[in-house]
Order: sequence, then C-alpha cells, then structure tokens
Amino acid sequence: MKLHDKILLEHGGGGQLTGELIEQVFLPRLGNPHLMQLTDSALVAIGDQRICFTTDSYVVSPLFFPGGDIGSLAVHGTVNDLAVCGAQPLFLSAGFIIEEGFATAQLEQIVDSMASAAALAGVQVVTGDTKVVPHGATDGLYITTSGIGRFVYDKPLSPSTIRPGDAVIVNGPVGDHGAAILCARQDLGFLSTVLSDSAPLGSLVRNILNASPHIHCMRDATRGGLGAVLAEIAQQSGHDIFARENDIPLRESVRGICEMLGFDPLYLANEGKLVVFCAADDAPAVLAAMHSHELGHEATRIGTVQESGRGRVVLTTLIGGERVIDRPTGELVPRIC
Amino acid sequence: MKLHDKILLEHGGGGQLTGELIEQVFLPRLGNPHLMQLTDSALVAIGDQRICFTTDSYVVSPLFFPGGDIGSLAVHGTVNDLAVCGAQPLFLSAGFIIEEGFATAQLEQIVDSMASAAALAGVQVVTGDTKVVPHGATDGLYITTSGIGRFVYDKPLSPSTIRPGDAVIVNGPVGDHGAAILCARQDLGFLSTVLSDSAPLGSLVRNILNASPHIHCMRDATRGGLGAVLAEIAQQSGHDIFARENDIPLRESVRGICEMLGFDPLYLANEGKLVVFCAADDAPAVLAAMHSHELGHEATRIGTVQESGRGRVVLTTLIGGERVIDRPTGELVPRIC
Repeated sequence: MKLHDKILLEHGGGGQLTGELIEQVFLPRLGNPHLMQLTDSALVAIGDQRICFTTDSYVVSPLFFPGGDIGSLAVHGTVNDLAVCGAQPLFLSAGFIIEEGFATAQLEQIVDSMASAAALAGVQVVTGDTKVVPHGATDGLYITTSGIGRFVYDKPLSPSTIRPGDAVIVNGPVGDHGAAILCARQDLGFLSTVLSDSAPLGSLVRNILNASPHIHCMRDATRGGLGAVLAEIAQQSGHDIFARENDIPLRESVRGICEMLGFDPLYLANEGKLVVFCAADDAPAVLAAMHSHELGHEATRIGTVQESGRGRVVLTTLIGGERVIDRPTGELVPRIC
Repeated sequence: MKLHDKILLEHGGGGQLTGELIEQVFLPRLGNPHLMQLTDSALVAIGDQRICFTTDSYVVSPLFFPGGDIGSLAVHGTVNDLAVCGAQPLFLSAGFIIEEGFATAQLEQIVDSMASAAALAGVQVVTGDTKVVPHGATDGLYITTSGIGRFVYDKPLSPSTIRPGDAVIVNGPVGDHGAAILCARQDLGFLSTVLSDSAPLGSLVRNILNASPHIHCMRDATRGGLGAVLAEIAQQSGHDIFARENDIPLRESVRGICEMLGFDPLYLANEGKLVVFCAADDAPAVLAAMHSHELGHEATRIGTVQESGRGRVVLTTLIGGERVIDRPTGELVPRIC
C-alpha cells in the first residue's frame, strides 16, 4: 500500500498503519536480522551472552491515571517486553523530555513511581538523560525507557514456533488499562473503579516458563489490545487462531464503559496482560502455574491454533456466530501509553 | 540549593541546574551504584560480560542543519557516549515521538541519515518504537536512542583516575556544532560555511586506547561545550586543570559567529569532539595516534592537570590573564541536541 504523505495518529497506534511505517520506512533503511524479527525485543549476542534489548517511548495522557502514572508505566512496559521474549529484565535507561514550566513536584512523584516499579520488578535504572523543551514544544513530559535483560529460556519464543493444536492462554481480564485511561480522560467519575492493570510480568513469566518446556510464544497485549496481538501473531505464524468470545475474561465495569462509549474491549490496551501459546498437553500445567501467581489467578484458555495457512483470528461470538478479528487500522484511543 | 518549583530550560542544559536535578530528584530516588557513577554510560555486568549502556533524547531544532540532522546526531551522540567510556558500540535502539502531520518524506530522510551514520559507526539499530502525538503536542520529531557496547579497555576510565601531571588533549576545533545550529536557526546565510562536527568517534577512540595504557579519562564535549566538560571533570577529580586559551583549537568562522552573537565558544556544543586525559609521558604517542585519524588530525594538547584539591579549571587567556571556567548555569543555546 502506498505510504501516506503525512504521518497520521494511526501510524503510532500499533495497528496496520504502524506496520506499514515499519515495513516501508524503517526496515528498508535500518534492516538487519535483529530488527527483521519484529519482536518486542531484539535478541543480540555480546561475547557468549545472549541479551535482549528493547525500547519504548511513553506519551500517555493524562500522566496520572487510576492504577498508575507515566513513571510506573514506563518501567512496566519495558520490563514486560523483555519478559515475554524469555529474558530476565536487569537494567533500564530512562530519557526524559520535559516541557519548560512542568511542576517539579509532579516530576518527583513520577520518578518516585518509577523507582517503586523498578524495585518491584527487580531492575535498576542505571543511566538516563533529561532534555527540557520550551513551553508548547511538548505536552508535559515524555519518557523513553530502554531495557536489557539476560535471555534465560533455552528455546526460541516466536510466532514461527507456534504449532497447530497449541493452546492460547491469557492471564486475566482484558481492556482495563484502556478503560482506566478513557475514564481519567473523560472525567467519568462514576466509573472510576476501573484501575489500569499496569504491572510487571517478569515473575509471572518465570512461573510460566518453569511450568512447561513447550512454551512457543508470548506477547504482552498492549497497544491495540488482545485483538491486535492475536491478529499480528496469527499473520506472522501463518496459522489460524480460533477463540471463543465467551472465554475471554472481561470485567463487567469495562464492558459497561465500552458499551457506553462505543469501544470494542478486544482492542483496548492492556499493560499487565500477556498471551501465551503452548503445547495443548501442557496447558493445564501452565494454567496452574499462572493461577498460583497474583497476576495470573484469572488466567483462562481462550482458544486453539489451527492449521490453515491463512493466518486469521476467528472469534466465535457470544451468540454463536463467527467473526474475523483484523489488526485495527490504528489505535482506538491515542496516547494510551 | 533549593530546587525550583518549575522545570526551567536550564534544567536540560547539561550545566549546574541539570546537576541539581540529577542530585535532588533522580539520584535520591533511583540511586544505585551504576547510576551514582554519573558517567555518560553505565557499566554493568551480564554473566561474564562487561557491558556499557547509555541513552540520550534528541530534541534538536531545526531537525536539519549544516553537517547533519537529528537522525545522524542521534546515532553519533549515543555511539560517542559508549566510545568515551571505553566500549565498542554494538547495538542501538531508537524511539521516535512524531507530531501528527509530520511529512513522511522528512521522516524517510532522517531514517536514511540514521542508517548511514549507523553503518559508518559499525553499529546496528536492532529495536525501536514509534509514537505519534496530536499536532501541537510535540515539535516535529524527537528521537531517543539507547546503545549497548562491549567494554574493551581493561583499565578504569573516570575522573577519579586522573592524576596530577596528566596531559589534557582535545581532538580538534571546538564549537562547530553549536555555531552550525545557531546559523541554521538565525538564517545567517552568509555564515553557512560552518558545518556541525557531528561524527562517530569510535574508531578514533580505538586509536587513542591502542596508543597508551595510561589513558585515564575521556569525555565527549557535547552540551555545555568544552568549558562545561572540563569544569565537571575538574570538580569530580578534585584536581585543578590548567589550560591555555591560545592552545584551544577554534575556527575563525566560529570565532566570528561568537563575536557577532555574543557567545563564548568554550561553552558551545560539539558532537564530534572529545577530551582525553592521559599520562604526560604518553601524550606524544596519543597525539600521534590522533593525528593519523581523520577526526583527530587537528588534535592539540590544551593543558595539564595540577594537584590542588580545589577542582577548578583555570584558563590562561590570550592576553596572559587567568580566568576560572565554571560550569554554565544552563545551556547557551536550547535544543542544541
């Protein structure tokens, strides 16, 4: 598809247009075997060590939301990108771009939050940078965190490793982060019981990897939600994923917000949810391991991988129909992370 | 000193106020032995490998300037931070924050420039992220690059390793980057022969490290220029640095721009200049190694370290007087990098 002349909001949404930007602008120019993997983290070798390396820029609005803030989000997001690639997160960097006039007390609160999140996730922020731009040249504060971790799982974790028959598991209800941001932004005070699920998934991932030697792929379902992640993985694996809408965990409160505002919870962002693809025989053990962890006690098997070569996600709806889940064009809610 | 209630432009300038922000906001909260080193890169261990890790956010304005653009700058800056710490730069990440409506052709030009700079520096961009924010929520495009490299010098390189008697060497004329940005910004067309010195210093650093086992410290003289870097290193080392203004290489064109606009070239940013502290006996060999490299053929010894415990930089001026060089409060020119 021909690239747009101007960058649209949807180019940053993690959906189809982000894919086009990556395929048409970044890969042809910067392409190398690491980047071509298109995973959340690059796996690189330094000496005899296999190291995962990842980066994410955080531009969430508002900076403070129920269940977290940009500081904790910037730690969790980067730690989770490392964890789902099979790495133990170790060290983070943080680059701050701050608008002139930003309240120092708010910055202190955000850095406090980063520090707590890092301590909980067992990582250290070891290097950083601060730039201040004139009033109006940014919106408050943006943080870019990069992370490095040691690769600890001795098998490849990628869509190409997924096999027909694999179980598809999610660790809990979807859409909480997106719903919390929507509530915070639209001042829906009466719905403010929805908290972001923003959380570090490293120790849950360790449980999962210890439970089975046949984990084939994991991905955290952030921008674009569970729908975008499943559609992307199905496409990359070449297999169809069949899921049952009825089995996808969803809070009543999030369902209500989505119905009221007209959003599909399947495409709402998460910041503490991951999808696991594993051999079906191991699914009970993996589920048991997840259930024993506080971030996985609502883990549910939502579907199965089927051979077809079409790379689609087919959802059996509540009323028994079938619906193909595409990658969203862009993002339902801009500046969600 | 009491922290300001609001973040000022000077907090991002690499000078005294940046130091206060680091010491009063970041270190007390995120502090760990790696961060406390306050070097451009953190030195961390992963297994048996010693790895350098660094990050910088680039907010330069304008995005394109004589001698480079934000893409090449974002590669050079990060590669140089690794190199001066004694590491071989290997892998970069790149996080883009783009304003909605940004011209795709300009983005392509910037990514082309990153790719060329990375190839020249012998590094790969292995992972990245793109966020798009609504029109007005950023100024065009910001890039945050992080880098990892393998530590290759078997001695510590830091201000605390500097000894009285050490030679102080700079690899060429100072202030070119700052002058080029000033010209581009003020549309001083008639002075447009000044090009940014933005360049990757990795191979020059290899020459330097191979020339002497007694290199004690290196630092790239970016934000705040040579003046800020010398003042910071003197303070950290506890020794005085005596330099001769007459020996500091400076282009006539840059001197002219500074005289016209009222800037001190000593505080103008560089993006391809470094300061080397080495044992005086090895200075001739280090200078010879630098002279044989295209980025060091104007290398000059500009001063000597003296014992005093006061940590000052004393400059003998052109007319024979003495002037103490302090860390600047902020930055002469905001958004220089």
